[in-house]
Amino acid sequence: MKIKAVIFDLDGVIVDTAEHHYRSWKQLAKELALPCPPKYKDQVRGISRTKALKIVLAGRETSKEEAEQLTTRKDTYYQEMIRTINPSDLLPGVHAILEALKKGGIGIAVATVSRNAERVLSRLEILDELDVLVDGNSAARSKPAPDLFLYAAAQLGIPPCECLVIEDAPAGIEGAQAAGMRAVALGPRDRFHSTRPDLILPSLEGISYKALLLQLKEEQDNATSWLVKETGFDPSRQNRFETIFTVGNGYLSTRGSLEERFPNDIPATLLNGLYDEIPIFHTELANAPNWTCLHLLVEEEPFSLRRGKVLLHERTLDLRDGILRRRVQWRSPQGQTVEIQTMRFTSMSDPHLCVQLYAVTALNFNGEVRLQTWLDGKAENPGIPPFPEVRLLHWEGLVQGSPDPQSIYLGTRARSSQTELGMATGLVLEGIPEGKIHTQEGACPSLDLTCHLRRGQTVVAVKLTSIFTSLKEKNPVKASLLKLEEAKDKGYATIMREHREAWASLWEDCDVRIEGDEQAQRAVRFNLYHLLIAAPRTEQTSIPAKTLSGFGYRGHVFWDTDTFILPFFALTQPDVAQRLLLYRYHTLAGAREKARQNGYEGAMFSWESAADGREVTPRWVPDHDGSPIPILCGTLEQHISADVAHAVWQYWKASEDDEFMQDFGAEIVLSTAQFWASRVEYDNERERYVIRHVIGPDEYHDDVDNNAFTNALARWNLKAGEEAWSWLMNHSAKRAEHLRQKLGFTEETIQGWREIADRIELLYDQETGLIEQFDGYFSLEDINLSSLEPRIHSVYDILGPKRIKESQAIKQPDVLMLLFLLPTEFDERTLRANWEYYESRTDHRYGSSLGPSIATIMGCKVGEIEKAYEHFLRAALVDLEDNRGNTQDGIHAASAGGVWQAVTRGFGGLRITPEGPRAFPRLPAHWKRMRFSVCYRGQRFSFDLTPQMKGPVKPVE
Amino acid sequence: MKIKAVIFDLDGVIVDTAEHHYRSWKQLAKELALPCPPKYKDQVRGISRTKALKIVLAGRETSKEEAEQLTTRKDTYYQEMIRTINPSDLLPGVHAILEALKKGGIGIAVATVSRNAERVLSRLEILDELDVLVDGNSAARSKPAPDLFLYAAAQLGIPPCECLVIEDAPAGIEGAQAAGMRAVALGPRDRFHSTRPDLILPSLEGISYKALLLQLKEEQDNATSWLVKETGFDPSRQNRFETIFTVGNGYLSTRGSLEERFPNDIPATLLNGLYDEIPIFHTELANAPNWTCLHLLVEEEPFSLRRGKVLLHERTLDLRDGILRRRVQWRSPQGQTVEIQTMRFTSMSDPHLCVQLYAVTALNFNGEVRLQTWLDGKAENPGIPPFPEVRLLHWEGLVQGSPDPQSIYLGTRARSSQTELGMATGLVLEGIPEGKIHTQEGACPSLDLTCHLRRGQTVVAVKLTSIFTSLKEKNPVKASLLKLEEAKDKGYATIMREHREAWASLWEDCDVRIEGDEQAQRAVRFNLYHLLIAAPRTEQTSIPAKTLSGFGYRGHVFWDTDTFILPFFALTQPDVAQRLLLYRYHTLAGAREKARQNGYEGAMFSWESAADGREVTPRWVPDHDGSPIPILCGTLEQHISADVAHAVWQYWKASEDDEFMQDFGAEIVLSTAQFWASRVEYDNERERYVIRHVIGPDEYHDDVDNNAFTNALARWNLKAGEEAWSWLMNHSAKRAEHLRQKLGFTEETIQGWREIADRIELLYDQETGLIEQFDGYFSLEDINLSSLEPRIHSVYDILGPKRIKESQAIKQPDVLMLLFLLPTEFDERTLRANWEYYESRTDHRYGSSLGPSIATIMGCKVGEIEKAYEHFLRAALVDLEDNRGNTQDGIHAASAGGVWQAVTRGFGGLRITPEGPRAFPRLPAHWKRMRFSVCYRGQRFSFDLTPQMKGPVKPVE
Repeated sequence: MKIKAVIFDLDGVIVDTAEHHYRSWKQLAKELALPCPPKYKDQVRGISRTKALKIVLAGRETSKEEAEQLTTRKDTYYQEMIRTINPSDLLPGVHAILEALKKGGIGIAVATVSRNAERVLSRLEILDELDVLVDGNSAARSKPAPDLFLYAAAQLGIPPCECLVIEDAPAGIEGAQAAGMRAVALGPRDRFHSTRPDLILPSLEGISYKALLLQLKEEQDNATSWLVKETGFDPSRQNRFETIFTVGNGYLSTRGSLEERFPNDIPATLLNGLYDEIPIFHTELANAPNWTCLHLLVEEEPFSLRRGKVLLHERTLDLRDGILRRRVQWRSPQGQTVEIQTMRFTSMSDPHLCVQLYAVTALNFNGEVRLQTWLDGKAENPGIPPFPEVRLLHWEGLVQGSPDPQSIYLGTRARSSQTELGMATGLVLEGIPEGKIHTQEGACPSLDLTCHLRRGQTVVAVKLTSIFTSLKEKNPVKASLLKLEEAKDKGYATIMREHREAWASLWEDCDVRIEGDEQAQRAVRFNLYHLLIAAPRTEQTSIPAKTLSGFGYRGHVFWDTDTFILPFFALTQPDVAQRLLLYRYHTLAGAREKARQNGYEGAMFSWESAADGREVTPRWVPDHDGSPIPILCGTLEQHISADVAHAVWQYWKASEDDEFMQDFGAEIVLSTAQFWASRVEYDNERERYVIRHVIGPDEYHDDVDNNAFTNALARWNLKAGEEAWSWLMNHSAKRAEHLRQKLGFTEETIQGWREIADRIELLYDQETGLIEQFDGYFSLEDINLSSLEPRIHSVYDILGPKRIKESQAIKQPDVLMLLFLLPTEFDERTLRANWEYYESRTDHRYGSSLGPSIATIMGCKVGEIEKAYEHFLRAALVDLEDNRGNTQDGIHAASAGGVWQAVTRGFGGLRITPEGPRAFPRLPAHWKRMRFSVCYRGQRFSFDLTPQMKGPVKPVE
Repeated sequence: MKIKAVIFDLDGVIVDTAEHHYRSWKQLAKELALPCPPKYKDQVRGISRTKALKIVLAGRETSKEEAEQLTTRKDTYYQEMIRTINPSDLLPGVHAILEALKKGGIGIAVATVSRNAERVLSRLEILDELDVLVDGNSAARSKPAPDLFLYAAAQLGIPPCECLVIEDAPAGIEGAQAAGMRAVALGPRDRFHSTRPDLILPSLEGISYKALLLQLKEEQDNATSWLVKETGFDPSRQNRFETIFTVGNGYLSTRGSLEERFPNDIPATLLNGLYDEIPIFHTELANAPNWTCLHLLVEEEPFSLRRGKVLLHERTLDLRDGILRRRVQWRSPQGQTVEIQTMRFTSMSDPHLCVQLYAVTALNFNGEVRLQTWLDGKAENPGIPPFPEVRLLHWEGLVQGSPDPQSIYLGTRARSSQTELGMATGLVLEGIPEGKIHTQEGACPSLDLTCHLRRGQTVVAVKLTSIFTSLKEKNPVKASLLKLEEAKDKGYATIMREHREAWASLWEDCDVRIEGDEQAQRAVRFNLYHLLIAAPRTEQTSIPAKTLSGFGYRGHVFWDTDTFILPFFALTQPDVAQRLLLYRYHTLAGAREKARQNGYEGAMFSWESAADGREVTPRWVPDHDGSPIPILCGTLEQHISADVAHAVWQYWKASEDDEFMQDFGAEIVLSTAQFWASRVEYDNERERYVIRHVIGPDEYHDDVDNNAFTNALARWNLKAGEEAWSWLMNHSAKRAEHLRQKLGFTEETIQGWREIADRIELLYDQETGLIEQFDGYFSLEDINLSSLEPRIHSVYDILGPKRIKESQAIKQPDVLMLLFLLPTEFDERTLRANWEYYESRTDHRYGSSLGPSIATIMGCKVGEIEKAYEHFLRAALVDLEDNRGNTQDGIHAASAGGVWQAVTRGFGGLRITPEGPRAFPRLPAHWKRMRFSVCYRGQRFSFDLTPQMKGPVKPVE
């Protein structure tokens, strides 16, 4: 953290003229017979006189001339008041800091909107100490625009990132940060609640410059568990970081690709629910036009990490507010050096809005810089294997144009779904240098900003992009143009503030705070961040297995959402959980159709689903030589129907949302029970109901009979069906009767469910307590997995598909998953016996990414905390450290959901007891403290746990 | 043909000042002690004085000042000479025409480079008759630039297409045509051999204006058999016309899409051999960036056939020189009306060069027009079924830029083959109005021409594009930039002249002239045109089944080329035929690999092949519900190996190219014989060699045994192997020994071939003369196809795949094809018997497009000329009338090759007899005359046939 200059605000920082200002305004107000309450003192702080006047006039209309007269009058009063200012008015601490700066050779500037600054500073007798004074007489716009600060930096000849601003007003903090500077805020903490200064101090009193720097560093260190950083740029890791640095808001996500692009990058903006059909994989999320694309030309030399010399490159994703920042110093092949600072976010408060900031400082030259951007309707999706490099193109252009010289728009349509997309982009120039923006049409509409920079000057461009589709809007182009206008009017600082407020409220609900383990802390927050940015905003959409952060699984939705992710939302943001389940409700038609096609009754949910619940698991994929490899999951992996019902139950029990259960949930539970009743077969020999030809969670063994997980979940589902029916009859006989008729069953049907449930096969050995994963599993070859160590490949890759099927090696612990999902059905002996048997037979490292988080929880349950912690890190770091080598395809969403369950249910031992939520903590020994909260039946319960505690621990008040 | 103005050249048209000019130059030459032979008189005709001086100086260097002095001196002599001019010098006929024009209200202009025009015209006493005089004193460039003519048209206020130019110099004709005007040439015919005036007259003497118009019309009518026209624009037919209007030169082809695009168009530029891998279909021709794209804005209103009012729209493809012309009159939504004339061609003399001309005339306004063009690296290919509408994108951008303000370039790379492509485009402004061209980069490099037109003015832009790939050039971008420079230097008129000369020589070799049947004449030329533009320029490439005119069959090469197309080239352009066979030679490695993989010996050619001869027939294609439909042709349609050997033989026999046979041909024939020897099985019961599990040309019956066509061709191939071996031993024992070792066979192997050939199964019924198509064919259900009439679907679609396989209905006459290919092996009784049996069981209309041309020939052979003519029209019009509804996928190349064989071998009865080529004509009764020529053993033989002739007819001298 190198600081080469400090830029002070004047009022409230160097001298308290706020009082003088307030008194001047008060006198004016009095003459106008208007009130001027003390709260105005804070409100007029640090803003322009025109804005201040508006506050004082409190809605009274004035002509421009009148306003001018009034501000002049107020100024006259102020002039009189400040005539008395003298060096003793210098605020405490300022003098010492100025001296320290002087000594250290640090540049000193004052940047203020005040037009009287020079006179005030002179009276304070510090005018000569300053290197630069920028005041309201400069042509710059007032704060929160970054102009004043950029102007000061340019005058100082120091790039913005090496400047520190000291401010007492939120608008000043915003302006400093928009300029790419660090900012220290002076004043009470709550004054800055909607901004994020790098440090907040009550005042400069009693603090030396050295102490200030130390505190700044400390604050920064505190923040690091919120920050994901990349230093330098490693092309071999760029696709991983594109996934990691994804920003999003549930409506859309955008991967963290470089603005100017780089070979083999995979830029993507994926809109939830925007599917388009493709061969083999049926459908996929169609990549939307890239809104982040910005090309910089320095004296006509295009900026690229492959050309010239990269002197510095770092990127930081701030998990607190989903803002991705980048800082670059680059020397062009011709020797011009620039500092580039960018940031981007997709607004959490206004999901159709994407924001970018791009700042360029000329470090060693006077010359021209150009920024080009365009809307390219030809966004690409990866191709079909075995040639994913030959891209797919879903879009056909409809319209494009430029409504004004600073804006462009594009209308395009997905080719098979016919979904239309509208996008509008505008550039707003911030900062001092005059720039010229013009638009051009052709292959695609483009914006071109040309600007002449003097050495040290910075140009800041804010780019606003709005996106709509015909899934929601009749005319998405028009909607995007309106939104762009609205955003321009609102302004960058306000958009940013609202976005941050939305994020703050999200974290308040779901942050997990871990002390004593920064790696774990950051990793947990990183996983939760990716769940939060994927949380759907409509009940027609869900969360794909790779969220919206990559093309893996083509954006299809699996049981991952219901079983792994839903519990997090059910206990932190129940409205999101409800939406996830409503998605399943709305896809019941597809599930019923699938059941019908397969000769069953009720609802058979699709293993992979997309917009409408149709089965979209590929039936086969092409091999390299062109022959088809069959994929059986879409046909045989049937436990998902019970998984969905189970998720409904979990949400219902946690939320007590009876209305949902009555109108939607019960129908899901009943329809899936119907399915299972038609799915089982009676085995005369065994005298049991059996389920043949399925795939359990362990996909290494496909087409097995009586998979314990599937059978037990089916049993649970049948019982739940019965229970749901009783409840519904009680709760709303009318709805019950309606459903009975709609689904076509009788009281006898229900009775049949109970009968089946009671006699369903479960391969449980009373003696050992062991559950056999499926018929014949125990007689398969028992391979000691540790004998394969050390290995860098999956057990599957080492043994091959044939041998693995004939062995007991498993992809994920099927039986343990069952014990996890239905904990009350099995005793502790069973738990321990199966843990010991299956844990060692699972490929935790390269098998399923769904396994480790569940292994963490089961490890905690049997008291193997160290082993549990090992599994936990594997789950928590799966993407941050790319420990399976496929982070480039997108975030492992099920694992992310599992991580929250691992910390709360595993280490925290969270259980819902008859008395309410209770913790039975089993924290890793080196953790000092863990805090989290859950929302149960509409109430929030917070836990504050330490390793010493034993359960049950009550929530804190 | 509406003529509203006539623009006369002066010298040589109105007055013969050529003599005066020549004498002036001669005097000057004499003073300079230089010769001035009489041929100079023609050479200096109609060109600027500066250019004329260069001719007279014959290479002698002069400074600019000296040149100026010399031309002034010559001018002085000329002034003296023309002082004597008077009305009697008016050339014969001029006065009458001027009077007729005056009476008819037709505009009269003189456009001349002469600076003395006004004086001369005044002396001739016709100055007052003129509406407009444009002379060398205008700022315009001299002819062949179109400036003078465009200037005259603008002054007259009449659009270029309604102007007629009368000229006596080739440069003037070129200038007039570049201006979009019709042109009458005066002078001896050979003076204009490299231009194409609309009419050539010796002089105007004795010809009235009415007679001139009549002759012009007659000439135009004569040309119509060379012209393919579209009048109006029917969106439902646009894809058909894109195929029909394809222009090409063997290196590349470009479909006839509209410059400004239209919804659902399928623009494509396909480069022969530029393959890139894709799923399922293995590989395909990757669509190159669209070089024809040009957007017109009239006062900022974009020109589109969907907006404003289209007052006139017509397109014409001139088969003589492959130039596609378009004429449009369009009124913008705001009421500005423009006339647009465009033309495009891909140079036949310089295959890397593509040329476009775009002329816009402001008909009713003064205002701005803009022309925008760009190089879009994201050229699309159709997607994979069942979602072809989701496009494939093969390209990734490498570089792009603009070397000067009038040029742009693009470098891009195919993603899987890594083939690089370079493309450069430049705009050259022709005509009077000042225009501003500028370039812009961004998503793709673009060129933007802005021009202010006054009412009646025309702007003419010539766009030159060069294309190279890394298949030939190390640095394709550099090569394209160099070629663009070269082309700019050479100039539009010269490029056009060279292109036309190349075309003229092609037609000289292969035109078939039919009198008495204009439809047939045009259709035959149309088919030959499409073969000529597909003829490969390298021996690494061949002709895909849909040429380079569409995406059908993904650009794969089938037996279509060897069996249907090759004979045309073998007998008209043997060098092309040789290249087609060398392509097979170079893909022998792939054929050997395929044999090895299938457990056979020798070379098993791929049913579909591309760059390297690997089998690229899809093994299956995805159905709509995602299930795979198997495609068996790649495995079972094996006759292609014999077809290739047969093509080698045909070429060798026609060309006597022993060198080719020794070095390449023999190896193909021997390797395929080896294959068949390993492919046959001995059937102990039959005591014959049999070939089981094949598909013959009739693909309605897949997986059959002892297909007569396959077996007979295999037999032929084995015998040909033996014969080739004997010949080779004789011709070059060294090469024979080399091949014996390379292919690994012995004398006994050869003996084995004979033995197999003698005992191969052929289902021939001695009694009836019938050949059974395959084992059991005759016992299949015999469906009377006429009972299905009237129908608009294929028999296959009506009966379905199962029933058709169990019936005798066939896709193409398999047995007749055999009788066609091996005519000497069967007698006439056999021919007639099988014709009668199979002809009625074939779906000629919607079965294979390969059938009708062969049916024509067989019909001729059995004397059923009327039926033959019916089949002939079906073949010849397959694309012009789109009679199978799939012309949009590309030209039916096999049918086109078959059409040439149908007219020459069928109606012409062409046979190679021991005395050389002879005709046994059987012309359709209404044909008056047919002429064609063939190249046999290095010599050209021309035939001139009438319906009355009986064979054998000798070639004409």
